[in-house]
Amino acid sequence: MKLNSKYKDFKLKIILVEPSGQINIGSVARLCLNFNVDKLAIVNPKCDIYSIETKKMALKGIHFINECSICTSINDAINDCDLVFATSGKSEYAKEPNCDSLKNLRKYVESHKKVKILGVIFGREDRGLTNKELLLANKVFTIGTNSKFLSLNLSHAVSIFLYEFFRNQTIDNELPDKIIEIASSKQIEDSFSEIERLLLKSGYILPHTSSAKISKFKKFIHRAETSKHEINILRGIVHQINWALENPEKV
Amino acid sequence: MKLNSKYKDFKLKIILVEPSGQINIGSVARLCLNFNVDKLAIVNPKCDIYSIETKKMALKGIHFINECSICTSINDAINDCDLVFATSGKSEYAKEPNCDSLKNLRKYVESHKKVKILGVIFGREDRGLTNKELLLANKVFTIGTNSKFLSLNLSHAVSIFLYEFFRNQTIDNELPDKIIEIASSKQIEDSFSEIERLLLKSGYILPHTSSAKISKFKKFIHRAETSKHEINILRGIVHQINWALENPEKV
Repeated sequence: MKLNSKYKDFKLKIILVEPSGQINIGSVARLCLNFNVDKLAIVNPKCDIYSIETKKMALKGIHFINECSICTSINDAINDCDLVFATSGKSEYAKEPNCDSLKNLRKYVESHKKVKILGVIFGREDRGLTNKELLLANKVFTIGTNSKFLSLNLSHAVSIFLYEFFRNQTIDNELPDKIIEIASSKQIEDSFSEIERLLLKSGYILPHTSSAKISKFKKFIHRAETSKHEINILRGIVHQINWALENPEKV
Repeated sequence: MKLNSKYKDFKLKIILVEPSGQINIGSVARLCLNFNVDKLAIVNPKCDIYSIETKKMALKGIHFINECSICTSINDAINDCDLVFATSGKSEYAKEPNCDSLKNLRKYVESHKKVKILGVIFGREDRGLTNKELLLANKVFTIGTNSKFLSLNLSHAVSIFLYEFFRNQTIDNELPDKIIEIASSKQIEDSFSEIERLLLKSGYILPHTSSAKISKFKKFIHRAETSKHEINILRGIVHQINWALENPEKV
């Protein structure tokens, strides 16, 4: 991942508080590898974190488990952190003054200079973090979900946090502003069965090489963001040529 | 979730292609509930999607499994979709012209009018989607992760896609631009042990009510985004008052 120089000295520490799910712990280890996390700490694990289940989910991220700090308190886990964030799924907490939407995360990170280690606390699977524990964080972030069923699974909350954290660290590649009514995938597929017939018949492509050539054509159609109107024109042309090829006597 | 009126007619259909993990399928069902997805379709499931493992992960989202469409091909699954997206973890695919970074998703969605159903295809746990299958999508999105170990677990890819899709549908709540050197969590905690001692000693708080009152104070300190400099001043004041209370003869 290409990082902005602005963030490269930042170390990120993920802190799980009393996790009880081996699958979750393994998944978080894999995510730590996916997103280049620096450190994992677990406060009072409530299950065997070295189990087969954990290993199966962690894959190549297993070293995060083997090298994680096991802490006896959150205070212990955040002791080396200059800045501490937490996440909460409690809808009533969203009203608290030190709580904000996760999409504002980057702006908040950028407003703090000289941060060496950022610790991010994730609560228990069943009941998250207590209000007292949430006060250990400088800022609490909520992840916007369906308000009728807010509660995200632990490892999915971690994945979304990490995605948001690194979201703007890759080079920007914005699309131009344009409003088009794009051809549907089905329209494109249908057109191509007719195009393929035409190209085979005309001898432009041979049956054993047709798949590769058709692929290139489809990529072009997608890249060009072909509209419904344009694909209809193309289809009309192809249809007409096919008819002409099949009815040479009428041409 | 408060949605922009612009998107509210949009229906979102998640399509899993040949998933083999019961835990993943259950997790995706829970995510469908978390994010208000409209429909789930599974193409040629490679495991028992009605297993206990699936139910345990799906929780209240289990109805997405019970009501999902089981399809025999991706074409079948996307038949009712006006627009089709796919995700890919293949780093070589990122160079393809119809591929873009996931963070540009919303802009791309907004550029298409009259879309009624958006289908999003997610590939197999072990090898994703083939290049031919990726061509069924109007656009392919990659999720920026650590390039050394790109591959995200299936359900985590789904969670990140859904988060990004709904990211800007909640009302914006931007933080003001400011650069501050915020007091660390540890500094705040240390200061508060001294503040608590002071307030107890001074009789402002009583031992059995101190926790609730201290919580209110901490919330204020967090909300105020207290700087290192400010917390040091506060601590100096408190330290001095404590000294004076303990040494009344010297005052």
